[in-house]
Amino acid sequence: MAMVLSEYAPAGTDLFRAVKMLLIHDLVEIDAGDTFCFDVQGNQSKAEREQRAADRLFGLLPSEQGQELCQLWNEFEAQKTVTAQFATALDRIQPLLHNRQTQGGTWRIHSITRDQVIQRMQPIASGAPELWEFVQQTIETCVAAGYLKG
Amino acid sequence: MAMVLSEYAPAGTDLFRAVKMLLIHDLVEIDAGDTFCFDVQGNQSKAEREQRAADRLFGLLPSEQGQELCQLWNEFEAQKTVTAQFATALDRIQPLLHNRQTQGGTWRIHSITRDQVIQRMQPIASGAPELWEFVQQTIETCVAAGYLKG
Repeated sequence: MAMVLSEYAPAGTDLFRAVKMLLIHDLVEIDAGDTFCFDVQGNQSKAEREQRAADRLFGLLPSEQGQELCQLWNEFEAQKTVTAQFATALDRIQPLLHNRQTQGGTWRIHSITRDQVIQRMQPIASGAPELWEFVQQTIETCVAAGYLKG
Repeated sequence: MAMVLSEYAPAGTDLFRAVKMLLIHDLVEIDAGDTFCFDVQGNQSKAEREQRAADRLFGLLPSEQGQELCQLWNEFEAQKTVTAQFATALDRIQPLLHNRQTQGGTWRIHSITRDQVIQRMQPIASGAPELWEFVQQTIETCVAAGYLKG
């Protein structure tokens, strides 16, 4: 996804670093148990569970290498760099496309509304601004098709 | 895997390009249906099925982008560059580790022998020579443990 959408990466994005972040943060989520983004209760413990998973996983490596991956993960989580912001934008677009493709998917199961999705997609507006209009249009298309509550 | 084992990449390896190859070739395999490496009949049609999958997948993209990914895939398949050879070495080590972890896994199901695995692992000897000794030791450990036929 980062490769195919690289032309939408803001100036200063380190694309390989973004790919590394995307690969690594998924390992942490797999180990911690992924948390459904609209699950309020699950998200209360998310940071703590993921930190524990990160410590465990990166701790398996020689310390120098563990530190390198830990720094990548921290950069992704902190969302201060354009690279981390672009990576997160991609990470948000993926479930949008997935739920569109599956006629609503998890949105329908959990009766998710347009406003919740717009809020969740906000990091795309800053992390990959050129994709924001596409995201807004896709959300409206999904509402019109009944995949998402208006 | 490419990140964590990058210190074993031979001089001249373009690590990001290797990561791209590894990500892309799996898409082609998913589309074509992955072929068990010791399945003689399946491997007769493998190249043709994968070429068809590659044409279909890369053809979904704007032509310039499709060509870029197609070139990456062709480079991986041709095995002429150190980058492609390193990527393939990683792609071979993964099932070795997996079958060790699962007490023989697909090796036991299909009564695979040490000689077959040694032959299959040969690209590691050239693509990541510093890992070859580890591979040989791992194979012997698996034979001794009864995960693999001697």
